[in-house]
Amino acid sequence: MDEAARRHNEKMKRIKAARDRMMQDKTEEKGLIIVHTGAGKGKSSSGFGMIMRCIAHRMPCAVVQFIKGTWQTGERQLLEEKFADECRFFVSGEGFTWETQDRDRDIAAARHGWELAKAQIRDPAIRFVLLDEINIALRYDYLDIEEVVDVLLTEKPPMTHVCLTGRNAKQELIEAADLVTEMSLIKHPFRDGIKAQQGVEF
Amino acid sequence: MDEAARRHNEKMKRIKAARDRMMQDKTEEKGLIIVHTGAGKGKSSSGFGMIMRCIAHRMPCAVVQFIKGTWQTGERQLLEEKFADECRFFVSGEGFTWETQDRDRDIAAARHGWELAKAQIRDPAIRFVLLDEINIALRYDYLDIEEVVDVLLTEKPPMTHVCLTGRNAKQELIEAADLVTEMSLIKHPFRDGIKAQQGVEF
Repeated sequence: MDEAARRHNEKMKRIKAARDRMMQDKTEEKGLIIVHTGAGKGKSSSGFGMIMRCIAHRMPCAVVQFIKGTWQTGERQLLEEKFADECRFFVSGEGFTWETQDRDRDIAAARHGWELAKAQIRDPAIRFVLLDEINIALRYDYLDIEEVVDVLLTEKPPMTHVCLTGRNAKQELIEAADLVTEMSLIKHPFRDGIKAQQGVEF
Repeated sequence: MDEAARRHNEKMKRIKAARDRMMQDKTEEKGLIIVHTGAGKGKSSSGFGMIMRCIAHRMPCAVVQFIKGTWQTGERQLLEEKFADECRFFVSGEGFTWETQDRDRDIAAARHGWELAKAQIRDPAIRFVLLDEINIALRYDYLDIEEVVDVLLTEKPPMTHVCLTGRNAKQELIEAADLVTEMSLIKHPFRDGIKAQQGVEF
């Protein structure tokens, strides 16, 4: 073994030992409150990636889409066509809120979505609930943040994961969450005149 | 209509007009070089969310997993079992690099993965290629960043999307990319002794 390989080997042994020590205390399982926020891409698609993992592991799951209701997304189509037994799919919103220009209708749609969401969260058969773009509804106060946090903290079964997505997550939600990721925009092709594309954005 | 509703309506009209103007120039389609980096969650799961969108839109796609080879992930299982026709799936790595402690074997695995990746990128039938955790192989210089960037910029068919994931993306890759997102860790349950869980992490 040459010197570089030997050094690499020793460094990797140290990393492995440190990791093994660290992972020793990671023994608990718990249903998580997961938040994906920030202006970058990947908040919803990562949520749908987790839905895919749940389907693979035969963990019954549910999606409530709060905003993206008007156009047919790939994720919705695939879940409704192929995985209707594994994943319940609900749509409450009628498109981004600036498309409808009707606050009362937006509020009614958000509240309807939240009623659906609560039923899924409370259902002990469901192991993972994705509340896609709920942060938009919370940001405009279409939903009461205190009620949402209260249901997550007091009514969610201990082993159920709930993932809430959308930019501008409220501070109260971040405080209540177990796992929070901010997706930040480093570079975006919209700036170069590229439109939203199949497979990437929807 | 009351005053609050009227103000909301006007604000949303302004947002819609601004968005419509902005979207007018977004007419082009282009195969994108997409990078997911950062220490937060969602880099791979968002890549798999896009794979799901591609499958829904009947866009043939391919995955090469560079690192996560040792355990059976949900995404791998689902794609191999249900979508073998729609998505080609390859694994090159044998687990995180600190598990193997053998630099030559890691390099050989990474280069094998890159040969598979190149074939998928060059294949005009494939519309989306996910190179999962390739940034780890690039970071340790198991692969040559200049060669990777060169293939992406000169050999990728114009309409093919390639998504490269993993923390510590090299600057050269970020410069070559069209769409870069950094997933940042705001809060993580590992700190509270919670282990990696089915559906969430794998």
